[in-house]
Amino acid sequence: MDIAILLYDKLTALDAVGPYEVLSRMPGATVRFVAREAGPIRADAGLGLHADLAFADLPHPDIVLVPGSSDPTGALSDPATLDWVRTAHATATWTLSVCSGSLILAAAGVLAGRRATSHWACMELLGAMGATPVEERVVTDGNVVTAAGVSAGIDLALRFVARLHGDDTARAAQLAIEYDPDPPFDVPSYPADEPLRQAAVALIGGAAA
Amino acid sequence: MDIAILLYDKLTALDAVGPYEVLSRMPGATVRFVAREAGPIRADAGLGLHADLAFADLPHPDIVLVPGSSDPTGALSDPATLDWVRTAHATATWTLSVCSGSLILAAAGVLAGRRATSHWACMELLGAMGATPVEERVVTDGNVVTAAGVSAGIDLALRFVARLHGDDTARAAQLAIEYDPDPPFDVPSYPADEPLRQAAVALIGGAAA
Repeated sequence: MDIAILLYDKLTALDAVGPYEVLSRMPGATVRFVAREAGPIRADAGLGLHADLAFADLPHPDIVLVPGSSDPTGALSDPATLDWVRTAHATATWTLSVCSGSLILAAAGVLAGRRATSHWACMELLGAMGATPVEERVVTDGNVVTAAGVSAGIDLALRFVARLHGDDTARAAQLAIEYDPDPPFDVPSYPADEPLRQAAVALIGGAAA
Repeated sequence: MDIAILLYDKLTALDAVGPYEVLSRMPGATVRFVAREAGPIRADAGLGLHADLAFADLPHPDIVLVPGSSDPTGALSDPATLDWVRTAHATATWTLSVCSGSLILAAAGVLAGRRATSHWACMELLGAMGATPVEERVVTDGNVVTAAGVSAGIDLALRFVARLHGDDTARAAQLAIEYDPDPPFDVPSYPADEPLRQAAVALIGGAAA
Protein backbone atom coordinates (compact mmCIF):
# COMPACT_ATOMS: atom_id res chain seq x y z
CA MET A 1 0.00 0.00 0.00
CA ASP A 2 1.60 3.24 -1.21
CA ILE A 3 0.69 6.33 0.76
CA ALA A 4 1.76 9.44 -1.13
CA ILE A 5 2.26 12.64 0.86
CA LEU A 6 2.43 15.73 -1.33
CA LEU A 7 5.33 18.10 -0.68
CA TYR A 8 5.57 21.62 -2.09
CA ASP A 9 7.46 24.78 -1.23
CA LYS A 10 6.02 26.65 1.77
CA LEU A 11 4.06 23.67 3.10
CA THR A 12 3.59 23.52 6.87
CA ALA A 13 5.89 20.65 7.82
CA LEU A 14 3.88 19.40 10.80
CA ASP A 15 0.82 18.91 8.55
CA ALA A 16 2.81 16.23 6.73
CA VAL A 17 5.04 14.92 9.51
CA GLY A 18 2.31 14.30 12.08
CA PRO A 19 0.39 11.83 9.87
CA TYR A 20 3.62 10.39 8.45
CA GLU A 21 4.77 9.29 11.91
CA VAL A 22 1.54 7.35 12.36
CA LEU A 23 0.84 6.09 8.84
CA SER A 24 4.42 4.96 8.16
CA ARG A 25 4.08 2.44 11.02
CA MET A 26 0.77 1.09 9.67
CA PRO A 27 1.19 -2.58 8.79
CA GLY A 28 1.85 -3.06 5.08
CA ALA A 29 2.06 0.65 4.31
CA THR A 30 4.89 2.62 2.71
CA VAL A 31 4.86 6.40 2.88
CA ARG A 32 6.33 8.18 -0.16
CA PHE A 33 7.02 11.91 -0.37
CA VAL A 34 6.07 13.22 -3.79
CA ALA A 35 6.56 16.65 -5.33
CA ARG A 36 6.47 18.36 -8.71
CA GLU A 37 10.10 17.33 -9.00
CA ALA A 38 12.15 15.08 -6.77
CA GLY A 39 14.57 17.12 -4.66
CA PRO A 40 14.67 19.81 -1.99
CA ILE A 41 11.59 21.51 -0.58
CA ARG A 42 11.55 24.44 1.84
CA ALA A 43 8.74 24.47 4.40
CA ASP A 44 7.01 27.72 5.38
CA ALA A 45 8.87 28.12 8.68
CA GLY A 46 12.28 27.28 7.19
CA LEU A 47 12.77 23.52 7.49
CA GLY A 48 14.38 21.79 4.52
CA LEU A 49 12.67 18.58 3.38
CA HIS A 50 13.38 16.20 0.52
CA ALA A 51 10.91 14.77 -2.00
CA ASP A 52 11.99 11.31 -3.11
CA LEU A 53 9.60 11.02 -6.03
CA ALA A 54 8.25 13.29 -8.76
CA PHE A 55 4.57 13.31 -9.73
CA ALA A 56 5.30 11.13 -12.76
CA ASP A 57 6.91 8.48 -10.53
CA LEU A 58 3.71 7.82 -8.56
CA PRO A 59 0.58 8.90 -10.42
CA HIS A 60 -1.67 6.32 -8.74
CA PRO A 61 -0.93 5.89 -5.04
CA ASP A 62 -3.36 3.86 -2.94
CA ILE A 63 -3.79 6.76 -0.53
CA VAL A 64 -2.98 10.42 -1.11
CA LEU A 65 -2.46 12.99 1.65
CA VAL A 66 -2.27 16.74 0.97
CA PRO A 67 -0.80 18.93 3.73
CA GLY A 68 -1.50 22.63 4.09
CA SER A 69 0.55 25.79 4.16
CA SER A 70 0.45 29.24 5.70
CA ASP A 71 0.75 30.42 2.08
CA PRO A 72 -0.76 27.83 -0.28
CA THR A 73 -1.08 30.24 -3.21
CA GLY A 74 1.83 28.63 -5.07
CA ALA A 75 0.34 25.14 -4.88
CA LEU A 76 -3.18 26.44 -5.59
CA SER A 77 -2.05 28.08 -8.81
CA ASP A 78 0.16 25.27 -10.11
CA PRO A 79 -1.62 23.19 -12.79
CA ALA A 80 0.84 20.28 -12.41
CA THR A 81 0.11 20.01 -8.69
CA LEU A 82 -3.66 20.19 -9.15
CA ASP A 83 -3.52 17.67 -12.02
CA TRP A 84 -1.57 15.20 -9.90
CA VAL A 85 -3.99 15.57 -6.98
CA ARG A 86 -6.97 15.12 -9.30
CA THR A 87 -5.46 12.08 -11.01
CA ALA A 88 -4.30 10.50 -7.76
CA HIS A 89 -7.71 11.00 -6.15
CA ALA A 90 -9.50 9.45 -9.14
CA THR A 91 -7.96 6.05 -8.47
CA ALA A 92 -7.00 6.25 -4.78
CA THR A 93 -8.87 4.32 -2.15
CA TRP A 94 -8.68 7.29 0.19
CA THR A 95 -7.83 10.97 -0.18
CA LEU A 96 -6.77 12.84 2.95
CA SER A 97 -5.87 16.44 3.75
CA VAL A 98 -4.62 18.41 6.72
CA CYS A 99 -5.13 22.12 7.38
CA SER A 100 -5.32 24.28 4.22
CA GLY A 101 -4.51 21.15 2.22
CA SER A 102 -8.29 20.98 1.82
CA LEU A 103 -8.11 24.18 -0.26
CA ILE A 104 -5.80 22.34 -2.65
CA LEU A 105 -8.27 19.44 -2.79
CA ALA A 106 -11.03 21.95 -3.51
CA ALA A 107 -9.00 23.64 -6.25
CA ALA A 108 -8.44 20.22 -7.82
CA GLY A 109 -12.18 19.61 -7.87
CA VAL A 110 -12.14 16.88 -5.24
CA LEU A 111 -14.44 18.59 -2.75
CA ALA A 112 -17.34 19.75 -4.97
CA GLY A 113 -20.43 19.33 -2.81
CA ARG A 114 -18.53 17.47 -0.10
CA ARG A 115 -18.43 18.16 3.62
CA ALA A 116 -14.89 19.08 4.65
CA THR A 117 -12.83 20.96 7.20
CA SER A 118 -9.66 23.06 7.17
CA HIS A 119 -7.61 25.38 9.35
CA TRP A 120 -10.04 27.71 11.14
CA ALA A 121 -8.58 30.69 9.25
CA CYS A 122 -9.46 29.05 5.91
CA MET A 123 -13.04 27.93 6.50
CA GLU A 124 -14.69 30.83 4.67
CA LEU A 125 -12.45 30.31 1.64
CA LEU A 126 -13.16 26.57 1.74
CA GLY A 127 -16.85 27.31 1.41
CA ALA A 128 -16.24 29.80 -1.39
CA MET A 129 -14.34 27.08 -3.25
CA GLY A 130 -17.36 24.78 -3.35
CA ALA A 131 -17.06 22.58 -0.28
CA THR A 132 -19.44 22.52 2.66
CA PRO A 133 -17.31 23.64 5.63
CA VAL A 134 -17.79 21.66 8.83
CA GLU A 135 -16.34 22.94 12.11
CA GLU A 136 -15.01 19.60 13.31
CA ARG A 137 -11.49 18.28 13.86
CA VAL A 138 -11.77 15.40 11.38
CA VAL A 139 -14.47 15.17 8.70
CA THR A 140 -15.17 12.13 6.52
CA ASP A 141 -17.26 12.35 3.34
CA GLY A 142 -17.14 9.20 1.28
CA ASN A 143 -13.49 8.37 0.70
CA VAL A 144 -12.27 11.88 1.47
CA VAL A 145 -11.08 12.64 5.01
CA THR A 146 -10.07 16.19 5.92
CA ALA A 147 -8.52 17.45 9.15
CA ALA A 148 -8.52 20.86 10.82
CA GLY A 149 -5.31 22.87 11.23
CA VAL A 150 -1.75 21.54 11.55
CA SER A 151 -1.75 19.31 14.65
CA ALA A 152 -5.16 17.84 13.68
CA GLY A 153 -3.34 15.61 11.19
CA ILE A 154 -2.27 13.40 14.10
CA ASP A 155 -5.88 12.86 15.17
CA LEU A 156 -6.84 12.13 11.55
CA ALA A 157 -4.07 9.57 11.11
CA LEU A 158 -4.88 7.66 14.29
CA ARG A 159 -8.57 7.47 13.34
CA PHE A 160 -7.53 6.30 9.89
CA VAL A 161 -5.38 3.50 11.32
CA ALA A 162 -8.29 2.47 13.53
CA ARG A 163 -10.58 2.32 10.50
CA LEU A 164 -8.16 0.28 8.37
CA HIS A 165 -6.54 -1.92 11.03
CA GLY A 166 -8.78 -1.80 14.08
CA ASP A 167 -8.69 -0.10 17.45
CA ASP A 168 -5.92 -2.24 18.93
CA THR A 169 -3.41 -1.27 16.24
CA ALA A 170 -4.41 2.37 16.49
CA ARG A 171 -4.04 2.30 20.29
CA ALA A 172 -0.55 0.86 19.86
CA ALA A 173 0.30 3.59 17.33
CA GLN A 174 -0.98 6.21 19.76
CA LEU A 175 1.20 4.83 22.54
CA ALA A 176 4.16 4.54 20.14
CA ILE A 177 4.11 8.31 19.58
CA GLU A 178 3.11 8.82 23.23
CA TYR A 179 0.10 10.84 22.18
CA ASP A 180 -1.42 11.55 25.55
CA PRO A 181 -1.63 15.28 24.88
CA ASP A 182 -1.40 17.83 27.66
CA PRO A 183 -1.83 21.26 26.06
CA PRO A 184 -1.07 24.06 28.51
CA PHE A 185 -4.25 25.97 27.66
CA ASP A 186 -7.83 25.25 26.66
CA VAL A 187 -7.93 26.88 23.23
CA PRO A 188 -10.87 25.72 21.11
CA SER A 189 -11.03 26.92 17.51
CA TYR A 190 -14.80 27.46 17.70
CA PRO A 191 -15.46 29.85 19.23
CA ALA A 192 -12.13 31.60 19.62
CA ASP A 193 -12.21 35.26 20.52
CA GLU A 194 -11.22 37.72 17.83
CA PRO A 195 -8.14 39.24 19.52
CA LEU A 196 -6.72 35.73 20.02
CA ARG A 197 -7.41 34.87 16.38
CA GLN A 198 -5.65 38.02 15.26
CA ALA A 199 -2.66 37.22 17.46
CA ALA A 200 -2.53 33.71 16.01
CA VAL A 201 -2.74 34.99 12.43
CA ALA A 202 0.14 37.37 13.19
CA LEU A 203 2.23 34.39 14.41
CA ILE A 204 1.30 32.29 11.39
CA GLY A 205 2.19 35.02 8.90
CA GLY A 206 1.81 34.44 5.20
CA ALA A 207 -1.31 34.24 3.12
CA ALA A 208 -3.42 32.29 5.61
CA ALA A 209 -4.07 35.72 7.12
CA MET B 1 17.85 34.29 19.49
CA ASP B 2 19.23 31.22 17.72
CA ILE B 3 17.43 27.97 18.47
CA ALA B 4 19.48 25.03 17.22
CA ILE B 5 17.65 21.76 16.56
CA LEU B 6 19.99 18.80 16.22
CA LEU B 7 19.45 16.56 13.20
CA TYR B 8 21.02 13.14 12.77
CA ASP B 9 20.32 10.04 10.72
CA LYS B 10 17.44 7.94 12.08
CA LEU B 11 15.97 10.72 14.20
CA THR B 12 12.20 10.66 14.72
CA ALA B 13 11.07 13.59 12.58
CA LEU B 14 8.05 14.57 14.68
CA ASP B 15 10.30 15.02 17.74
CA ALA B 16 11.96 17.90 15.88
CA VAL B 17 9.09 19.18 13.74
CA GLY B 18 6.53 19.52 16.55
CA PRO B 19 8.62 22.00 18.57
CA TYR B 20 9.92 23.68 15.38
CA GLU B 21 6.40 24.66 14.32
CA VAL B 22 5.88 26.38 17.66
CA LEU B 23 9.34 27.80 18.39
CA SER B 24 9.92 29.15 14.87
CA ARG B 25 6.94 31.47 15.36
CA MET B 26 8.25 32.72 18.74
CA PRO B 27 8.94 36.46 18.49
CA GLY B 28 12.62 37.18 17.86
CA ALA B 29 13.58 33.52 17.44
CA THR B 30 15.24 31.80 14.48
CA VAL B 31 15.27 28.01 14.32
CA ARG B 32 18.36 26.47 12.74
CA PHE B 33 18.78 22.80 11.85
CA VAL B 34 22.27 21.62 12.71
CA ALA B 35 24.00 18.30 12.01
CA ARG B 36 27.45 16.80 11.99
CA GLU B 37 27.66 18.01 8.40
CA ALA B 38 25.28 20.24 6.49
CA GLY B 39 23.26 18.22 3.99
CA PRO B 40 20.74 15.41 3.76
CA ILE B 41 19.44 13.48 6.78
CA ARG B 42 17.19 10.42 6.67
CA ALA B 43 14.65 10.11 9.51
CA ASP B 44 13.86 6.73 11.07
CA ALA B 45 10.57 6.27 9.21
CA GLY B 46 11.98 7.36 5.85
CA LEU B 47 11.48 11.12 5.56
CA GLY B 48 14.35 13.08 4.02
CA LEU B 49 15.33 16.25 5.89
CA HIS B 50 18.04 18.82 5.29
CA ALA B 51 20.51 20.24 7.81
CA ASP B 52 21.42 23.81 6.89
CA LEU B 53 24.35 24.11 9.27
CA ALA B 54 27.22 21.94 10.47
CA PHE B 55 28.22 21.79 14.14
CA ALA B 56 31.13 24.16 13.49
CA ASP B 57 28.73 26.75 12.04
CA LEU B 58 26.78 27.15 15.28
CA PRO B 59 28.73 26.00 18.35
CA HIS B 60 26.93 28.37 20.74
CA PRO B 61 23.19 28.65 20.06
CA ASP B 62 21.04 30.43 22.62
CA ILE B 63 18.79 27.40 22.91
CA VAL B 64 19.55 23.81 21.90
CA LEU B 65 16.94 21.12 21.26
CA VAL B 66 17.80 17.43 20.89
CA PRO B 67 15.16 15.17 19.30
CA GLY B 68 15.00 11.43 19.82
CA SER B 69 15.06 8.38 17.62
CA SER B 70 13.72 4.85 17.54
CA ASP B 71 17.38 3.88 17.15
CA PRO B 72 19.60 6.51 18.78
CA THR B 73 22.66 4.26 18.94
CA GLY B 74 24.41 6.12 16.11
CA ALA B 75 24.05 9.50 17.78
CA LEU B 76 24.86 8.06 21.23
CA SER B 77 28.15 6.65 19.98
CA ASP B 78 29.27 9.64 17.91
CA PRO B 79 31.85 11.76 19.77
CA ALA B 80 31.32 14.77 17.47
CA THR B 81 27.60 14.81 18.24
CA LEU B 82 28.09 14.47 22.00
CA ASP B 83 30.82 17.15 21.97
CA TRP B 84 28.56 19.58 20.16
CA VAL B 85 25.70 18.93 22.57
CA ARG B 86 28.01 19.36 25.58
CA THR B 87 29.55 22.57 24.21
CA ALA B 88 26.22 24.03 23.15
CA HIS B 89 24.67 23.26 26.54
CA ALA B 90 27.58 24.87 28.39
CA THR B 91 26.73 28.31 27.04
CA ALA B 92 23.06 27.96 26.11
CA THR B 93 20.34 29.65 28.10
CA TRP B 94 18.15 26.57 27.76
CA THR B 95 18.71 22.96 26.73
CA LEU B 96 15.67 20.98 25.58
CA SER B 97 15.05 17.40 24.51
CA VAL B 98 12.18 15.34 23.18
CA CYS B 99 11.72 11.56 23.51
CA SER B 100 14.97 9.58 23.56
CA GLY B 101 16.82 12.84 22.90
CA SER B 102 17.25 12.85 26.69
CA LEU B 103 19.48 9.77 26.31
CA ILE B 104 21.75 11.86 24.08
CA LEU B 105 21.76 14.62 26.70
CA ALA B 106 22.65 12.02 29.32
CA ALA B 107 25.45 10.59 27.18
CA ALA B 108 26.84 14.11 26.78
CA GLY B 109 26.88 14.52 30.56
CA VAL B 110 24.12 17.11 30.67
CA LEU B 111 21.74 15.16 32.91
CA ALA B 112 24.04 13.98 35.71
CA GLY B 113 21.91 14.13 38.85
CA ARG B 114 19.09 15.91 37.09
CA ARG B 115 15.40 15.02 36.97
CA ALA B 116 14.38 14.25 33.39
CA THR B 117 11.92 12.36 31.26
CA SER B 118 12.01 10.42 27.98
CA HIS B 119 9.94 8.09 25.82
CA TRP B 120 8.30 5.53 28.14
CA ALA B 121 10.33 2.74 26.52
CA CYS B 122 13.59 4.51 27.47
CA MET B 123 12.98 5.41 31.11
CA GLU B 124 14.98 2.54 32.58
CA LEU B 125 17.95 3.34 30.34
CA LEU B 126 17.65 7.03 31.23
CA GLY B 127 18.09 6.11 34.91
CA ALA B 128 20.99 3.81 34.13
CA MET B 129 22.68 6.73 32.37
CA GLY B 130 22.71 8.88 35.51
CA ALA B 131 19.52 10.92 35.34
CA THR B 132 16.58 10.70 37.74
CA PRO B 133 13.67 9.53 35.58
CA VAL B 134 10.35 11.31 36.18
CA GLU B 135 7.14 9.93 34.69
CA GLU B 136 5.75 13.27 33.53
CA ARG B 137 5.08 14.74 30.11
CA VAL B 138 7.43 17.73 30.53
CA VAL B 139 10.13 17.96 33.21
CA THR B 140 12.15 21.07 34.05
CA ASP B 141 15.35 20.91 36.10
CA GLY B 142 17.27 24.17 36.12
CA ASN B 143 17.75 25.21 32.51
CA VAL B 144 17.14 21.72 31.11
CA VAL B 145 13.64 20.85 29.93
CA THR B 146 12.91 17.32 28.75
CA ALA B 147 9.74 15.96 27.15
CA ALA B 148 8.25 12.47 26.97
CA GLY B 149 7.92 10.62 23.66
CA VAL B 150 7.48 12.11 20.19
CA SER B 151 4.27 14.17 20.34
CA ALA B 152 5.19 15.52 23.81
CA GLY B 153 7.53 17.96 22.11
CA ILE B 154 4.51 20.07 21.16
CA ASP B 155 3.47 20.36 24.82
CA LEU B 156 7.04 21.24 25.78
CA ALA B 157 7.32 23.95 23.14
CA LEU B 158 4.05 25.65 24.08
CA ARG B 159 5.03 25.69 27.76
CA PHE B 160 8.39 27.11 26.76
CA VAL B 161 6.81 29.94 24.77
CA ALA B 162 4.57 30.70 27.75
CA ARG B 163 7.61 30.89 30.01
CA LEU B 164 9.59 33.16 27.70
CA HIS B 165 6.82 35.29 26.20
CA GLY B 166 3.79 34.90 28.46
CA ASP B 167 0.53 33.03 28.32
CA ASP B 168 -1.10 35.24 25.67
CA THR B 169 1.61 34.54 23.10
CA ALA B 170 1.56 30.82 23.90
CA ARG B 171 -2.22 30.71 23.56
CA ALA B 172 -1.91 32.36 20.14
CA ALA B 173 0.74 29.81 19.14
CA GLN B 174 -1.53 26.99 20.31
CA LEU B 175 -4.41 28.35 18.21
CA ALA B 176 -2.06 28.91 15.26
CA ILE B 177 -1.30 25.19 15.10
CA GLU B 178 -4.91 24.43 16.10
CA TYR B 179 -3.70 22.32 19.01
CA ASP B 180 -7.03 21.35 20.52
CA PRO B 181 -6.16 17.66 20.52
CA ASP B 182 -8.80 14.98 20.19
CA PRO B 183 -7.02 11.62 20.40
CA PRO B 184 -9.33 8.75 19.51
CA PHE B 185 -8.35 6.73 22.59
CA ASP B 186 -7.36 7.31 26.20
CA VAL B 187 -3.85 5.86 26.18
CA PRO B 188 -1.76 6.98 29.15
CA SER B 189 1.90 5.95 29.22
CA TYR B 190 1.77 5.21 32.96
CA PRO B 191 0.37 2.71 33.51
CA ALA B 192 0.04 1.12 30.08
CA ASP B 193 -0.66 -2.58 29.96
CA GLU B 194 2.13 -4.84 28.85
CA PRO B 195 0.50 -6.29 25.70
CA LEU B 196 -0.19 -2.75 24.48
CA ARG B 197 3.41 -1.73 25.18
CA GLN B 198 4.67 -4.72 23.24
CA ALA B 199 2.40 -3.89 20.32
CA ALA B 200 3.67 -0.30 20.37
CA VAL B 201 7.29 -1.40 20.47
CA ALA B 202 6.62 -3.65 17.47
CA LEU B 203 5.25 -0.65 15.55
CA ILE B 204 8.16 1.55 16.57
CA GLY B 205 10.75 -0.99 15.51
CA GLY B 206 14.42 -0.22 15.86
CA ALA B 207 16.52 -0.05 18.99
CA ALA B 208 13.97 1.67 21.20
CA ALA B 209 12.65 -1.86 21.70
